[in-house]
Amino acid sequence: MALDDRKSDFTFVGTRPDRPDGLDKVTGRAKFGADAVAPGMLFGAIVRSPHAHARIVKIDTSKAEAMKGVKAVVTRADFATGLTGEFWNVQENVMAGDTALYDGHAVAAVAATSALDARDAAKLIEVEYEVLPHVTDVDKAMAADAPVIRDGTADGSVPEGMHPNVVRYHESGHGDVAAGFAEADLVIEDSFKTEATHQGYIEPHACLASLGADGKGELWCTTQGHWYAQKHCAALLGIETSQLRVTASEIGGGFGGKTTVFIEPVALALSRKANRPVKLVMSRSEVLRATGPTSSTSMDVKIGMKKDGTITAAEGVFRLQGGAFPGAPMEFTAMCAFAPYALENVRQVGYDVIANRPKQAAYRAPGSPMAAFAVESVIDLLCQELDLDPVEVRLKNASKKGTKASYGPRFDDIGLVECLEAARDHPHYSAPLEQGQGRGISCGFWFNHGGETSVSLALSEDGTVQVSVGTPDIGGSRASMALMASETLGIPYENIRVTIADTATLGYNDVSHGSRVTYASGLATIKAAQAAIAEMCKRAAAKWGIPEDAVKWEDGCAVPSGPNAGDFEPLAMADITADMGATGGPISGHFEATPEGAGVSFGVHIVDAQVDPETGKTSIPRYTVIQDAGKAVHPAYVEGQFQGGAAQGIGWALNEEYIYGEDGRLQNAVFLDYRIPVASDLPMIDTVIVEVPNPGHPYGVRGVGETGIVPPLAAIANAVSRAAGVRMHELPMSPPRILAALKADG
Amino acid sequence: MALDDRKSDFTFVGTRPDRPDGLDKVTGRAKFGADAVAPGMLFGAIVRSPHAHARIVKIDTSKAEAMKGVKAVVTRADFATGLTGEFWNVQENVMAGDTALYDGHAVAAVAATSALDARDAAKLIEVEYEVLPHVTDVDKAMAADAPVIRDGTADGSVPEGMHPNVVRYHESGHGDVAAGFAEADLVIEDSFKTEATHQGYIEPHACLASLGADGKGELWCTTQGHWYAQKHCAALLGIETSQLRVTASEIGGGFGGKTTVFIEPVALALSRKANRPVKLVMSRSEVLRATGPTSSTSMDVKIGMKKDGTITAAEGVFRLQGGAFPGAPMEFTAMCAFAPYALENVRQVGYDVIANRPKQAAYRAPGSPMAAFAVESVIDLLCQELDLDPVEVRLKNASKKGTKASYGPRFDDIGLVECLEAARDHPHYSAPLEQGQGRGISCGFWFNHGGETSVSLALSEDGTVQVSVGTPDIGGSRASMALMASETLGIPYENIRVTIADTATLGYNDVSHGSRVTYASGLATIKAAQAAIAEMCKRAAAKWGIPEDAVKWEDGCAVPSGPNAGDFEPLAMADITADMGATGGPISGHFEATPEGAGVSFGVHIVDAQVDPETGKTSIPRYTVIQDAGKAVHPAYVEGQFQGGAAQGIGWALNEEYIYGEDGRLQNAVFLDYRIPVASDLPMIDTVIVEVPNPGHPYGVRGVGETGIVPPLAAIANAVSRAAGVRMHELPMSPPRILAALKADG
Repeated sequence: MALDDRKSDFTFVGTRPDRPDGLDKVTGRAKFGADAVAPGMLFGAIVRSPHAHARIVKIDTSKAEAMKGVKAVVTRADFATGLTGEFWNVQENVMAGDTALYDGHAVAAVAATSALDARDAAKLIEVEYEVLPHVTDVDKAMAADAPVIRDGTADGSVPEGMHPNVVRYHESGHGDVAAGFAEADLVIEDSFKTEATHQGYIEPHACLASLGADGKGELWCTTQGHWYAQKHCAALLGIETSQLRVTASEIGGGFGGKTTVFIEPVALALSRKANRPVKLVMSRSEVLRATGPTSSTSMDVKIGMKKDGTITAAEGVFRLQGGAFPGAPMEFTAMCAFAPYALENVRQVGYDVIANRPKQAAYRAPGSPMAAFAVESVIDLLCQELDLDPVEVRLKNASKKGTKASYGPRFDDIGLVECLEAARDHPHYSAPLEQGQGRGISCGFWFNHGGETSVSLALSEDGTVQVSVGTPDIGGSRASMALMASETLGIPYENIRVTIADTATLGYNDVSHGSRVTYASGLATIKAAQAAIAEMCKRAAAKWGIPEDAVKWEDGCAVPSGPNAGDFEPLAMADITADMGATGGPISGHFEATPEGAGVSFGVHIVDAQVDPETGKTSIPRYTVIQDAGKAVHPAYVEGQFQGGAAQGIGWALNEEYIYGEDGRLQNAVFLDYRIPVASDLPMIDTVIVEVPNPGHPYGVRGVGETGIVPPLAAIANAVSRAAGVRMHELPMSPPRILAALKADG
Repeated sequence: MALDDRKSDFTFVGTRPDRPDGLDKVTGRAKFGADAVAPGMLFGAIVRSPHAHARIVKIDTSKAEAMKGVKAVVTRADFATGLTGEFWNVQENVMAGDTALYDGHAVAAVAATSALDARDAAKLIEVEYEVLPHVTDVDKAMAADAPVIRDGTADGSVPEGMHPNVVRYHESGHGDVAAGFAEADLVIEDSFKTEATHQGYIEPHACLASLGADGKGELWCTTQGHWYAQKHCAALLGIETSQLRVTASEIGGGFGGKTTVFIEPVALALSRKANRPVKLVMSRSEVLRATGPTSSTSMDVKIGMKKDGTITAAEGVFRLQGGAFPGAPMEFTAMCAFAPYALENVRQVGYDVIANRPKQAAYRAPGSPMAAFAVESVIDLLCQELDLDPVEVRLKNASKKGTKASYGPRFDDIGLVECLEAARDHPHYSAPLEQGQGRGISCGFWFNHGGETSVSLALSEDGTVQVSVGTPDIGGSRASMALMASETLGIPYENIRVTIADTATLGYNDVSHGSRVTYASGLATIKAAQAAIAEMCKRAAAKWGIPEDAVKWEDGCAVPSGPNAGDFEPLAMADITADMGATGGPISGHFEATPEGAGVSFGVHIVDAQVDPETGKTSIPRYTVIQDAGKAVHPAYVEGQFQGGAAQGIGWALNEEYIYGEDGRLQNAVFLDYRIPVASDLPMIDTVIVEVPNPGHPYGVRGVGETGIVPPLAAIANAVSRAAGVRMHELPMSPPRILAALKADG
């Protein structure tokens, strides 16, 4: 089903009204993580390990404690004991136990009456380390001679004989891969590596915490998931979850990197000890050294193809280094790798490898962009060798409704073919290239996600509506919730205010991740609005003295229907809400669920690259993003998501990387050295919204936040490789790497 | 039904656990109205009329606007136009239109970068007034020669020929009063007056407001009703209700006086004009001059009695001055006056009179204490004349279940007889009096109220609970909600956190008034908890594979019952919540209603007074409060309410009053001159909690916040009159008035 088939059904969804947070953000009224203040507030600072791997022999806090203005010093001893599993891993990362596991790992913290005093006091905390051997590269961490980082971390999935740094293993697929390769006219196998990158959100982590000796606390923080923060902070501090009220601030970007906690439990521990509110704000250097970048990867991909472009078999091995803790998303990498293609024979393997780096966190479609880089590079190589059109080859093999996905299930309605057709027909794809330019394309896939969701909606007496959602607005969800509520209720968008409720005032909500918000909170908003409509119809029926089922809801009004049609004047919302107190009480609507109908998402990117053979610098003169949104609720935001994914992908592909020295320390922990794209690095990024409705959502919504970052690495690598005449196997394709590749190629 | 009959049913309700806000309040962590701050915040100051009645000829703001640091000046022109009814009255009071109606009436306001600058700038605003004749006394305001304050304000209820300052009229009753008086052995008719008093809350009005050009705003304020504030501020500013998010701060007392808005719309108007957040905090002088004290009254009461103490008829005329706006609660005064007594013949009349004073606001059982003063004084006179025991006379005539109340309906289960019996049997009532002492008693009545109520309740994965209520906690409601939730769910009180939700995150809630909170929010909490229990039983049934109705909830666990009894181990709450996301989604419970089963409340006070005939000073050596709570959820808070009512009543009876000069200006607008009781003025106030369950509440709860202030004025007047040997007709019974009465009596 294409857009035009459904567009006529919508009055508000699909329009582009003003952003509800627009004025707040341009006038400075929006309150971000660091904008909270409290009377008597202290400022915190964290002491971090300068070693990649070191036993903590002794921490002497006496000098810091003696300093004027210092009100509390905490170490691991100030946190709960006896945690296991994920809680234990998070706690270890938030504050080192007996061993510092990476450069920047927190080992102590201090709170003082000024930020300057806190930083000075942090310098007075003396930590005695016994430096241990370290490893930061994924392949080296798997090698037999690698230092063992955390013995006993591996779970039962890991095959025998592997290095203890391999902590989890994944294998999936179907068919007979060997037989498939035998059928192929050409089999290409190649290896690829990608470096860790950071989400680069503009706003550093920041929080204001207050925790009393009574175990009751308040936390204000910039986060993608305040219920996650609540649950984890409560566990780490040893208090009851419900006694900690967490409010999500306005958020200056997250992209997955604010789905966990770093400084929040530390601020709470300091507050509890000082009996004062404590503010903690990270510097950029702390953000880069000690939050959650992506995994670095090492990948082998083998694909067999017939001369007509049919893929006969595919196989991939994906090794992900995710820092010193289990959890690198290697199963996502493996499962996404071949998802765009309908394959008879496919097998994918993943390794979760620990190393002396910060614990990775999600970054848009975690794990999938790297897989696409490897897989789509090999497909591009096959197209080059077999002289086939890259879009036609992908169309020939594209997954469609009914395809058994490489990772198991059968697809329902999906939009990959539509995206590829749009790419084929887009003027960009057939535009002539200039001298020195190459064109690359790539498909990309992400699952999307439902997740635990609670939404409440309350009517005001003047007929306006307040919607309460629990998913921080990281990409325009307040606008899309308002549009969906508006569509359902039949009242103007301007009559609705959407608020991100804190943890104390709404049911549990999973994190804003997995492209789930517009889908799941949207679905819950629609259902909550329908519950309010049912109640309004009931009030109208009582007023008219007719059966409840003789009232229908039309264009924001209760209308008598059936045998009573025309008997009474329609009642507008404001007519019903005006006296709701006297007709049964306040009218609200609620919905809680873990919806399971998230619709998978595909995108196709077309990119032109120009490589300067003298400097190795790549520029991107043209870029087109095509993606299936299911239904674009507020198209301007959807386009923004598409463009943002491409922009971040350009950075990842060309310049961004974590550079570790031989000493295991991060060498580029500032934005001058960790180079994210600036405006002059980017072309105008064109977008095409494809709309193949997700059957699992009333309005057909799929998430759009993540898929957009999956194709860029591969599409740009394909463009660069074609422009430079040499296949690039490692990201980022920074000038030195391009020059090296050109030189190696002669 | 007495306490002991039901006590065994309760595990948590009726206990005295720690106060949830205890640590916050003793450590300073609690955030009151003035504790909110925002980046870029301005400070506001209000210019107030120095005249009791004056036409505003011209306001010149140019000098103030030119002052450095001044960011906005507002007058009435900066508010919405076209308001009518209550909205218009509130707007007129918040900011004068063409006429200043009382000393302290706001006429302009300014916002500047410091509080000092704002106050200085306010002095630079030049207001030209044309002074008009004024009147402040209720009887003088009704006199033929009184200046007309706001012509055309009277509604259709006022009999013809009354002065235009009489704006509303009430009359009710039943039987034949003249015939009743004819049956009496003794008829006494007497007249009484009371002065206006202030609630005397410790925390002055304070708020932080932010309103943008987009019509979206935030307001933090100390209030008893943030939905009321939301609705009224939105109307006064001309924005949509739902676009203004209002958060209630911790509140330092309200007692009815924080049920309306004063500075909040002004701060919003300043913020909109300056495009910055604005803080406004009243001084004590502003609180006394320009918030909402009680009405002053003038009353005539006539009661006929047989020699055996039977009342044959009663009649009362109650004139209330409520400031320059309609709304003095004269109908409550009239309706409460004779409610304690089962009367065949009764008639009550009320007059709402406007004068040049600030608009009255509620103060615990608004209007009822003054009626009790007049009525119970006349009953005491009858007892003295007929030599009857004051408790026995009241018992003989007491209202009970089935009595047709003086104001119309028939009473259901009520506890007046139980209170009177408790008074009769209390050691205080039979204790010997010392030389110069007198003992007084009085009954008191209040309706109590239901009101619009929304409560939501959410479960955390660790099995703890968050309750979200919309009624600011003015008397311990967080504790009582937690106890009721605890009782319903069968989990410890400590596992529950109750939060006062803001207007954006919960359905509509009426103000914390009418003694309604423990009743109505409590009922809603119980119902919301029951909804969550139903969902938990459903989850357990699904897990066990048995029908939903085969699961019951017992002691905090789902238990298989009926034919499945004993088939499975009980599932505790935490067992069910741990995986709620995977078994259907988050679990919450919600309830919205306007409950109509509020149980009326009666109390009886016994007080001993000692009057110094030389100085006229009265001391209170002993005081006992007896009141029907229905069910005391947290008895320590209930006792606190009883004691607080008595303490405030002692102030009202003996010392507190608004003193207006001939010029119509308030002469005692500071706490040194407006004399509220201090600790040394008060005895230990003894309390007896009577529990006659309210059939309209699952746990039998009646409100307890208001009735406690009804009997003190009369009980103390009766004690003083008996001690001094002269009947007191006017409050407060301050030393000068007592000396004057003694002198007049010779």
